[in-house]
Amino acid sequence: LAIPEFYFQVLGANSALPTRDRFPSSFILAYKQSRILIDCGEGSQIKMAEYKIKRSKIDHIFISHMHGDHVFGLPGFLNSLTLSGRKKAIYLYGPTALKTYIDAVIAATGGHLGYELCYHLLDTDEVTDLGMVCGLQVKAVPLQHRIPTYGYSFTEVMSEYNIDPLKIKAHNLPRSEILLAKSGQDIERENDTIAYQDVTLPPREMRSMAYCSDTVYDPSIVPAIKGSTLLYHEATYLEELRDKARERMHSTTTEAATIAEMAKVDTLVIGHYSSRYVDVNPLLKEAQKVFDNTMLAVGGKKYEIR
Amino acid sequence: LAIPEFYFQVLGANSALPTRDRFPSSFILAYKQSRILIDCGEGSQIKMAEYKIKRSKIDHIFISHMHGDHVFGLPGFLNSLTLSGRKKAIYLYGPTALKTYIDAVIAATGGHLGYELCYHLLDTDEVTDLGMVCGLQVKAVPLQHRIPTYGYSFTEVMSEYNIDPLKIKAHNLPRSEILLAKSGQDIERENDTIAYQDVTLPPREMRSMAYCSDTVYDPSIVPAIKGSTLLYHEATYLEELRDKARERMHSTTTEAATIAEMAKVDTLVIGHYSSRYVDVNPLLKEAQKVFDNTMLAVGGKKYEIR
Repeated sequence: LAIPEFYFQVLGANSALPTRDRFPSSFILAYKQSRILIDCGEGSQIKMAEYKIKRSKIDHIFISHMHGDHVFGLPGFLNSLTLSGRKKAIYLYGPTALKTYIDAVIAATGGHLGYELCYHLLDTDEVTDLGMVCGLQVKAVPLQHRIPTYGYSFTEVMSEYNIDPLKIKAHNLPRSEILLAKSGQDIERENDTIAYQDVTLPPREMRSMAYCSDTVYDPSIVPAIKGSTLLYHEATYLEELRDKARERMHSTTTEAATIAEMAKVDTLVIGHYSSRYVDVNPLLKEAQKVFDNTMLAVGGKKYEIR
Repeated sequence: LAIPEFYFQVLGANSALPTRDRFPSSFILAYKQSRILIDCGEGSQIKMAEYKIKRSKIDHIFISHMHGDHVFGLPGFLNSLTLSGRKKAIYLYGPTALKTYIDAVIAATGGHLGYELCYHLLDTDEVTDLGMVCGLQVKAVPLQHRIPTYGYSFTEVMSEYNIDPLKIKAHNLPRSEILLAKSGQDIERENDTIAYQDVTLPPREMRSMAYCSDTVYDPSIVPAIKGSTLLYHEATYLEELRDKARERMHSTTTEAATIAEMAKVDTLVIGHYSSRYVDVNPLLKEAQKVFDNTMLAVGGKKYEIR
């Protein structure tokens, strides 16, 4: 079986002041045929059009927090879905103010949506299981920022055991027994039991992605994102502006890389750059001193999760 | 004296569904050193960055109506002004729901602005004089659309009479008398009166611009926009979709051109194209059959008002 497609794509990864080429925060998490939208800064739908991402594939939207550079694209996106004839519900996850915001904007702009909005509103200090979304196990991870903020982790569920083709003939396994073994159950026969381990190969390792933006440096999130295949962590400033980062409750490059190192992730992607940085390569270089496998979030780029 | 700079620039002129190259409605009216923002669809501030328009030059924003494709860029723009350190007030003109919308968005997104918002809210069926803005006489023109909507006209005030240089020496005019004549007053001397017409050349004709979007075909607006140097009028559909236009309270190309013809404007710019039109040239061709001097609104393009 082919490994399902799983990648993280940047629509925008700048902080609040957008520039021509760097849009505010908005990301797509692709898994199999699903597209999950994470944050929705101004221009998100314009970038979707540019990168040929089908709006209609998006059923679930995760919002980290209510600062404008993470949500000002949402009303336009939801409106466009109506104009495109959408009837299927949209699922929204985020802080409680998310519903207040959407309700107020719809009321004030004479709008109506042609489909239902289903909210999963968060108001908790604990890591919270949000259940299965598009085949991924999702958790909300409270972050420390100036207003209520949540990171999210997305983990593939345990895949089935792979049947060992050589053993099918050896044990003369019918389809019903193959399915049993693939699901990790022993095969009980009248005079015999075949342990599922004897006829299967181990499942491949589960992949996962964690999204942490915006947040001050906070090692208490490490257990919740431990071992992620890919971590997106904000790195608004260079280390020389650590005081500014603390004051604004953002992270520096070194801090993002330290979290990645402690969480033993495979790959770190940094973003949410302050617009003061015309060239963001110094941010990358500084992070790589602490965590070598760091990459810059770049508009349009896809980061495979493997 | 050089004629003051006066032009209309398109940031976006598409209707609600934006595409990569066609952003929703947003325009700049430039007069001398001032930049007036007219409507503010999603991505307006991104286009300003692209076209190198200084946000800080904008003190006045005119909003036609509260449909999302005309206002969803406003919260981000206002936020960015705060982040850029603005302290000067911003003047907002539009329907009463404009204030409700901005207040609700600011409250829900934990925002605060670093400067004052001064509203001139409109709730009238009459053409209304909004006074002088940046050296232009502004009027609100009620339009017929699905929700309360206003067009706006901007007219240069009477310029000074130009002094005839040949007459300065002939009459031996001191500076005080030159200023009198330039302002259109006769020069009273002890034994003599010099009529200002005798020493001046006529002032050049006053220029004006009218903005009408969104609106159903409505000839009752013609007197209010009569003789405009430049008219921007929406033309969402080709004439073959006239029924659709009526139903949605939009105009067709032929209807926009008919208004231009009746109002005897110099130049018509059409826009607010339905996103069904990948190629907008047929819209231009159809309008030109009725009003020859029609142009297409194109992102970034400046239309001189002369």
